[in-house]
Amino acid sequence: MTPFPFSQSQRGYTPPRPIKVGVLGATGAVGQRFVQLLEGHPWFQVTALGASGRAVGKTYGAAAGWRLSADVPEYARDITMVEGKPGPEWDCDIIFTSLPAEIAGEVEEEFAAAGYKVFSNSRNHRYDPDVPLMIPEVNPDHSNMLAHQQKGRGWERGFIVTNPNCTTIHLVLALKPLQDAFGLKKVIVTTMQAVSGAGYPGVPSLDVIDNVMPHSFDEEEKVESEPLKIMGRFEENDPRFEEALFAVSATCTRVAVREGHTESVAVELGRTATIEEVAAALTEFEAEPQRLKLPSAPLHPVVLRTEAHRPQVLLDRDSENAMATVVGRLQKCKVLDYRFLLIGHNTIRGAAGASILNAELLAAQGLII
Amino acid sequence: MTPFPFSQSQRGYTPPRPIKVGVLGATGAVGQRFVQLLEGHPWFQVTALGASGRAVGKTYGAAAGWRLSADVPEYARDITMVEGKPGPEWDCDIIFTSLPAEIAGEVEEEFAAAGYKVFSNSRNHRYDPDVPLMIPEVNPDHSNMLAHQQKGRGWERGFIVTNPNCTTIHLVLALKPLQDAFGLKKVIVTTMQAVSGAGYPGVPSLDVIDNVMPHSFDEEEKVESEPLKIMGRFEENDPRFEEALFAVSATCTRVAVREGHTESVAVELGRTATIEEVAAALTEFEAEPQRLKLPSAPLHPVVLRTEAHRPQVLLDRDSENAMATVVGRLQKCKVLDYRFLLIGHNTIRGAAGASILNAELLAAQGLII
Amino acid sequence: MTPFPFSQSQRGYTPPRPIKVGVLGATGAVGQRFVQLLEGHPWFQVTALGASGRAVGKTYGAAAGWRLSADVPEYARDITMVEGKPGPEWDCDIIFTSLPAEIAGEVEEEFAAAGYKVFSNSRNHRYDPDVPLMIPEVNPDHSNMLAHQQKGRGWERGFIVTNPNCTTIHLVLALKPLQDAFGLKKVIVTTMQAVSGAGYPGVPSLDVIDNVMPHSFDEEEKVESEPLKIMGRFEENDPRFEEALFAVSATCTRVAVREGHTESVAVELGRTATIEEVAAALTEFEAEPQRLKLPSAPLHPVVLRTEAHRPQVLLDRDSENAMATVVGRLQKCKVLDYRFLLIGHNTIRGAAGASILNAELLAAQGLII
Amino acid sequence: MTPFPFSQSQRGYTPPRPIKVGVLGATGAVGQRFVQLLEGHPWFQVTALGASGRAVGKTYGAAAGWRLSADVPEYARDITMVEGKPGPEWDCDIIFTSLPAEIAGEVEEEFAAAGYKVFSNSRNHRYDPDVPLMIPEVNPDHSNMLAHQQKGRGWERGFIVTNPNCTTIHLVLALKPLQDAFGLKKVIVTTMQAVSGAGYPGVPSLDVIDNVMPHSFDEEEKVESEPLKIMGRFEENDPRFEEALFAVSATCTRVAVREGHTESVAVELGRTATIEEVAAALTEFEAEPQRLKLPSAPLHPVVLRTEAHRPQVLLDRDSENAMATVVGRLQKCKVLDYRFLLIGHNTIRGAAGASILNAELLAAQGLII
Repeated sequence: MTPFPFSQSQRGYTPPRPIKVGVLGATGAVGQRFVQLLEGHPWFQVTALGASGRAVGKTYGAAAGWRLSADVPEYARDITMVEGKPGPEWDCDIIFTSLPAEIAGEVEEEFAAAGYKVFSNSRNHRYDPDVPLMIPEVNPDHSNMLAHQQKGRGWERGFIVTNPNCTTIHLVLALKPLQDAFGLKKVIVTTMQAVSGAGYPGVPSLDVIDNVMPHSFDEEEKVESEPLKIMGRFEENDPRFEEALFAVSATCTRVAVREGHTESVAVELGRTATIEEVAAALTEFEAEPQRLKLPSAPLHPVVLRTEAHRPQVLLDRDSENAMATVVGRLQKCKVLDYRFLLIGHNTIRGAAGASILNAELLAAQGLII
Repeated sequence: MTPFPFSQSQRGYTPPRPIKVGVLGATGAVGQRFVQLLEGHPWFQVTALGASGRAVGKTYGAAAGWRLSADVPEYARDITMVEGKPGPEWDCDIIFTSLPAEIAGEVEEEFAAAGYKVFSNSRNHRYDPDVPLMIPEVNPDHSNMLAHQQKGRGWERGFIVTNPNCTTIHLVLALKPLQDAFGLKKVIVTTMQAVSGAGYPGVPSLDVIDNVMPHSFDEEEKVESEPLKIMGRFEENDPRFEEALFAVSATCTRVAVREGHTESVAVELGRTATIEEVAAALTEFEAEPQRLKLPSAPLHPVVLRTEAHRPQVLLDRDSENAMATVVGRLQKCKVLDYRFLLIGHNTIRGAAGASILNAELLAAQGLII
Repeated sequence: MTPFPFSQSQRGYTPPRPIKVGVLGATGAVGQRFVQLLEGHPWFQVTALGASGRAVGKTYGAAAGWRLSADVPEYARDITMVEGKPGPEWDCDIIFTSLPAEIAGEVEEEFAAAGYKVFSNSRNHRYDPDVPLMIPEVNPDHSNMLAHQQKGRGWERGFIVTNPNCTTIHLVLALKPLQDAFGLKKVIVTTMQAVSGAGYPGVPSLDVIDNVMPHSFDEEEKVESEPLKIMGRFEENDPRFEEALFAVSATCTRVAVREGHTESVAVELGRTATIEEVAAALTEFEAEPQRLKLPSAPLHPVVLRTEAHRPQVLLDRDSENAMATVVGRLQKCKVLDYRFLLIGHNTIRGAAGASILNAELLAAQGLII
Repeated sequence: MTPFPFSQSQRGYTPPRPIKVGVLGATGAVGQRFVQLLEGHPWFQVTALGASGRAVGKTYGAAAGWRLSADVPEYARDITMVEGKPGPEWDCDIIFTSLPAEIAGEVEEEFAAAGYKVFSNSRNHRYDPDVPLMIPEVNPDHSNMLAHQQKGRGWERGFIVTNPNCTTIHLVLALKPLQDAFGLKKVIVTTMQAVSGAGYPGVPSLDVIDNVMPHSFDEEEKVESEPLKIMGRFEENDPRFEEALFAVSATCTRVAVREGHTESVAVELGRTATIEEVAAALTEFEAEPQRLKLPSAPLHPVVLRTEAHRPQVLLDRDSENAMATVVGRLQKCKVLDYRFLLIGHNTIRGAAGASILNAELLAAQGLII
């Protein structure tokens, strides 16, 4: 598998020295994506990979159970895996985490307290009032909360930044340009999600071969609530996140797709808009990561396809190095204002890539080193 | 494959003599379902099977390319296939049709003009103002249009009755009890449809393995408009179908499922209702086919499941002999009033079984013989 | 789901009283098949269902996590599950078991020692020199070992009978008529196995969507060795099973199929035979269960299809109520003598149905009550 | 999709000028692979893309119905498609063809007669006694037949070179090192083939979802006979291909995999060999394309995996840029000598990449310009 093609012609921010990163949960489905996406990263250098019990002390090549392509990236093959506790073997500035929710909450706090900048995929701290839930294109200013987080928790250098659920990220990327241009009042979404979102072993094959599986209620709650925090405003004076006011209704299912979620979305806007205006808002959307030319940022965060049979998750999930949300079938809706399909890669832009882009943003904001 | 288990304890209407039926398009995906479902039918007796060019003159067993189970039902194996034109070899009262839209329109008219009662799965005549688009549980009185149809077209004994698109049927079966109990204002639906709906060879495997495929715009239009005719009122005096007034927004996709459609539905009702009232309306729904104890009628047209992971198309598509619509995940909707998932068998209740149930209803109404 | 259609016109052996049966591991994939297949059994009556820890004390309907069709068969719904230990709540003659290999060995011995007739799907005792590994069509006389088993182990009324691995059963059913008619020297088989064989949750969806998965080496060993014991001779005088002398080479894979294994087989026979002779041997194969008209016995244990595109696991797995092995593509082999494809249902004929048929045989042999 | 990563450090043959190439059947499944693999080729420059009826005159971007990734490679997007007949618009040295067998035979001859070097994927000329059936690693000297082909057919500059069926290519790549090292007597192979081999629309989804489909007899014949020509000897004096003498038995099936064939192979060697010797022969295999450092040549034509669950078509099909055959599960065979699983990409190494590598070889042999 070809390494992630970071922009070479990059002329934005460059950190003064390589930033060292560690990955907690490095053998999991998202953990493997971290290891894959960090190969050859222009700013980040992997110095530690964390494992649970049995794998500690083994090389990553031997213990990973690599499932993304033929072989573990060469740089990671001989890294000896270490226990997921702060200590001298975690010689790094940043911790990327993708741990099971049962343990993620505490472990992330331990690392933050020990001075690490933690970028988390887990749901545990997403709703903490002092923890930013970030998508760099949507709410780059939410990192302003971190000073208050550190003060409130008594952490000197460490902090926790979270990224949303994979389904939320792609939904919000498509909603943000609409919110900016027209305001947003109502959103109804039905998802058809890939099995990789559940990790490995994850979804039993008997659940999805010749079937559509209702997802857990919990997933629906996340997709209904996370967008309101992300798309809400950060109140500088009385430091808090003020939730956005639109309503989201989410129905979630799983289908027999390996990678990439499909979402059917209907929206009611804050004001009247022609379909050409809506299309233009999506197509022209550009935000902080694009202006900062962050290494993992897609050139176009939202890609609009106009062909009758697009988007297709199979064909479009790798668009913009799997970092874009691809929208298509944009039409007038007979009930709300507009409806469309969107697809997006769930373990790249929807998980590991989301954390990495958050870390790149914060590095460029001067918050890492 | 076990024959369709027609109710044995049936004590409703019985026709005075066996009713002879023929099937046009008998080798197609839906045509095979007709042949399967008519095995051992208590009222109907298959006397003719129609084929195109090459297959004419061959036995059904040899020409069918049977794909539903190991073997063609024994009764049909040695029937010699005949050309799809009215004539003495079509010795029957009823014609069930499942022809490609390119030819269905004309052929159906020819048979109706020649005195046959035509029950059609094709879209061609669904919108003719004098052709009923029927679901026996929903609009059994729409057959009152047939006298006007015959008069207007100069047909003495024949007529055309259509049944809706497979996706529409299951949607409408779930909506009808809500319309009756609470009124209905808005419906948003996203579908995940089985590949069998497109017949054979139909959907290319490259389109659905590891993919979700946007369906044609045409499918979405059907699902948005058909319910309004079906759930509308038949005006006896000025004979016409008055469309229902609610709005439907439909987004349609195909997934790697063999049989059975899944639909994610959100509704706005005409008046406030508690979730218990909505559940009761669905569960208690019973209509003309149940009262008449028609042979193919499900005991419960709508089945409500309350388990967290239901409905699943794989487990629920055969409910009530594949003649029910199965609803689950009923919840308050944050945007409209309620939302739920439904599943239903697309080639049985959604196609061949729909036509047969229509024919049973009309027989009981005294309109066949 | 329609209950298993036991032959009604049955005029063979009938036991003097209903035989009571219990199922160990009743919530597993094969356990559910037992519960399904035993619905309405003419001889056997389910009196106890066993569960592990949490499920003990719950009704089967509540605890089963039923995955075979819409609902648990009505007869089983309210049975309270009991612990898997011999005791008064196991009021039955026969125990059907489908337990994980980690515990099956001991539990089965406990029940046999306590006087139960144990019919096991687990691999633990398959190779014990005093335990018959039985397929009723192949080695019905191997039950003669049971008297010696009881004597040797000091069991008064109980015993253990095993059935082979699902892949082996179908292979041996196709090989037996060839062995009988022509002798058998070499067998090379490659399997494409269904995911249901691994139970639930079993095979991860990430392993089989868009993939073919090499099966474990262990599976290959079973398929290479089990046939030799089954097709070997029972030595009455010096009571032991004398292994058959042919050689089997087995390569096993898993594919994205829910139910039913496909096997590609090449054989070298003991003597020259024409393809017509081989076809006749397969087609005309009939054995003890057919002669005894056992309730679950297929009319034809081996079905030979001659169409170019058969067998197909999807179409043929339910042949003869899923109790037959379906062979097709029979051809001369350029390396050995003949080659063919076979398919068979893995959790019915290949597991639960295999145990039930074994129990029926032994009942007719007077070994149960 | 990232372009094919041709070796940059290449220091073998370089042609004196860019070689111009055209693609016949450019919108087909293999045709699209040609267009994809030729992006940025160091020697070859695409100057013409052929289409049938309707597409002639349209741009490739508009007419391709591209299905390999989000978008047609930029270089090809605006190329206007031309009719598949020799003429001035075919301004090129080489023609790559992937046409349906119904028309391939004649069209290829027309182009060869008109002076083009034709590299064909179609089966039509594979068995012509004067047409090489080539795999560069296996029989690079078979191009010596071309002088005789031209002489015999009266073609001045043009010729036809064919590559084998996708299944054959990977089988032969694994067999060749064994033949070289130990001799080869018998081969039994069972295939589980990807649906992409049948093009688009190709295999109906109803044939492969939850199914294994027997392939056509024709496919089996190709796999049984093609290896004998390819692995046979070119007789210089009496110019002809002398067939190799081993026997191949092939059983072919299709499974629900998008890309990449899996083959289960058992072999009898010409002499005794240890498993270490066999492993070494496979691993160390290197041939003409590697020595010549051809741009598309894999570093290792055969990759041997030793993990218990490898090869897996999903993980391994892209090995060595999808140009390698990946072998695993190498074991002693109880019937023949050794058995193993192999996988290989069917539309890259098995089709378009095979033709391109043939063309590169012949260029390096001085036979193109």
